[in-house]
Amino acid sequence: MPLSDSVILCECWARDGLQSMPHVVPTEQKLEMISNIMASGVQKLEVTSFSHPKLLPQFADAEEILRRMPRPSGVSAVVLMPNERGFDRFEICQKEGYGADEIILMISASEAHNLANFRMTHSQAKHVHAGIMARAEKLGVKVIGCAGTVYGCPIAGDVAFADVADLVRFYVDHGAATIMLGDTTGAANPFLVRERVGALRELFPKVEFIAHFHETRGTGIVNTFAALELGLRYVDASLGAIGGQPATSQGRYQHGFTGNVSSEDLVCMLEECGVDTGLDLDRLIQNGRRAEDILDQRLRSNVIGAGRVNHDPRAYAPQAVESSQDESIRA
Amino acid sequence: MPLSDSVILCECWARDGLQSMPHVVPTEQKLEMISNIMASGVQKLEVTSFSHPKLLPQFADAEEILRRMPRPSGVSAVVLMPNERGFDRFEICQKEGYGADEIILMISASEAHNLANFRMTHSQAKHVHAGIMARAEKLGVKVIGCAGTVYGCPIAGDVAFADVADLVRFYVDHGAATIMLGDTTGAANPFLVRERVGALRELFPKVEFIAHFHETRGTGIVNTFAALELGLRYVDASLGAIGGQPATSQGRYQHGFTGNVSSEDLVCMLEECGVDTGLDLDRLIQNGRRAEDILDQRLRSNVIGAGRVNHDPRAYAPQAVESSQDESIRA
Repeated sequence: MPLSDSVILCECWARDGLQSMPHVVPTEQKLEMISNIMASGVQKLEVTSFSHPKLLPQFADAEEILRRMPRPSGVSAVVLMPNERGFDRFEICQKEGYGADEIILMISASEAHNLANFRMTHSQAKHVHAGIMARAEKLGVKVIGCAGTVYGCPIAGDVAFADVADLVRFYVDHGAATIMLGDTTGAANPFLVRERVGALRELFPKVEFIAHFHETRGTGIVNTFAALELGLRYVDASLGAIGGQPATSQGRYQHGFTGNVSSEDLVCMLEECGVDTGLDLDRLIQNGRRAEDILDQRLRSNVIGAGRVNHDPRAYAPQAVESSQDESIRA
Repeated sequence: MPLSDSVILCECWARDGLQSMPHVVPTEQKLEMISNIMASGVQKLEVTSFSHPKLLPQFADAEEILRRMPRPSGVSAVVLMPNERGFDRFEICQKEGYGADEIILMISASEAHNLANFRMTHSQAKHVHAGIMARAEKLGVKVIGCAGTVYGCPIAGDVAFADVADLVRFYVDHGAATIMLGDTTGAANPFLVRERVGALRELFPKVEFIAHFHETRGTGIVNTFAALELGLRYVDASLGAIGGQPATSQGRYQHGFTGNVSSEDLVCMLEECGVDTGLDLDRLIQNGRRAEDILDQRLRSNVIGAGRVNHDPRAYAPQAVESSQDESIRA
């Protein structure tokens, strides 16, 4: 199963990433990071959310972010759209010329999760999202339909495949060409990924699916790899592996614990696998370090500590070495 | 490529894990952890190293550990053997009835790495190890031959496959039936794993290979999964993902950074994949938390924060819910 020669990585730090952080990051620092992320070569990035500012103060500056962020050509800016009131605000930005290229709408395949997270039944959510999709079409904004809890739900346990397929069909029927499959709380494993993503690709051969896995249980990279081996070409990741729902555990298990796959680690692995992401890993590593400074904590990228894999041997000539066994220290 | 129904996990916390920790853990706490790890259901664990106490003070208590640790039936205790002087010490333990079941001998496939790490050329190391293997055979102790830097070297870059195969052949010719393939500094990727492990299994069809990957770049789990899909049945891992060489980076990147695959995360994933490890994940999680207490730092297991994947739905009945879009907060 060869991987695609190139993969489009959507950098989610400024939205899905920051969503899990209780500390509100100043607008200037968000703009700095968005600018840095764009300069690292991304073709796509999440920039903000139109969630209600009282409920997610992190994104109270959504309009300002959109108005002031850089707009390099060929880069798609993505925003999360939770509901029609959020869309009202977004519509103003869009009409004034500083909107976004794509919006994300999301319904959890687990209705229990959707109720807990969005306070809507499936039926209510579909009604609302159908309305938003009609308005988005008029505005010329692309919609990414997202099914959450695709591989399992922390409330309701196993999620029926039929519920996932039903949501995908809903978004496709209302005009979405791209569907994100969210492993909201890291319940997936590679076999389940192959089973579900494989079946969805057969059911919806024209749809572009996005792999979106979380490191809740350390399986984000292995699940992403499994999805890419099925032929997916779009993937979500975040600098420092932050994002997703806030950790349910308290104390030593910090916020951001359940986060996305680390962009730095994923890009490093994909480079090693011969897959072009268009991203500059050295810049990503710099960005990952800056993200740690801004959030004032060690995040979960490994590559920012270890650096690239070494393929360039130093000039090395074996020398005659006295056998000094006592100095052999490690294995 | 189906996984084996069952996988033998060697828990490396007490040796490969602690090796990277600058703080010497008190003998009582090591014995407590070894006892805990045995009680979690392992069939195999590393318990100590016979490295020279002046060079690795962490293991100055090797004899005491062997003398005092529990000896449940069916559990194989493994020790690292760096050289003949270490074997002299081990031989005394073994003859007095408190030895170990298996010893690990290790040579880096990269000669530059072997020189830097063990101060021996390949030729010198083979000479020493051949002598140890002859003595081990007389003592009735099984030898695990380990090739290090199998997938790449931090000093010499890419490692020739011929050098790896040569080391495997050396150990097999001298009587080893089990060979550990060490990704010493996390240079592997799943394609390279398939290529190298696949070729080695063809060359040495009777050998039992052990998958040993590090999380240096976040790819330990994906590489382990790739190796298990090739049919390997033995795997190394460590509570909290500690182990391996001390981090080359300083400052915020802590000791233990380049460590082994996390036992907790790996066992959770394998359980999800339907693979029996014989390990009790709940106990492993408890052990992982105790390991954090002992080492006084948050380690890198994810599952100890997130817990198991939820497959058991709570009694859940969808209720009529007022649509209250403003309260939808996350996606």
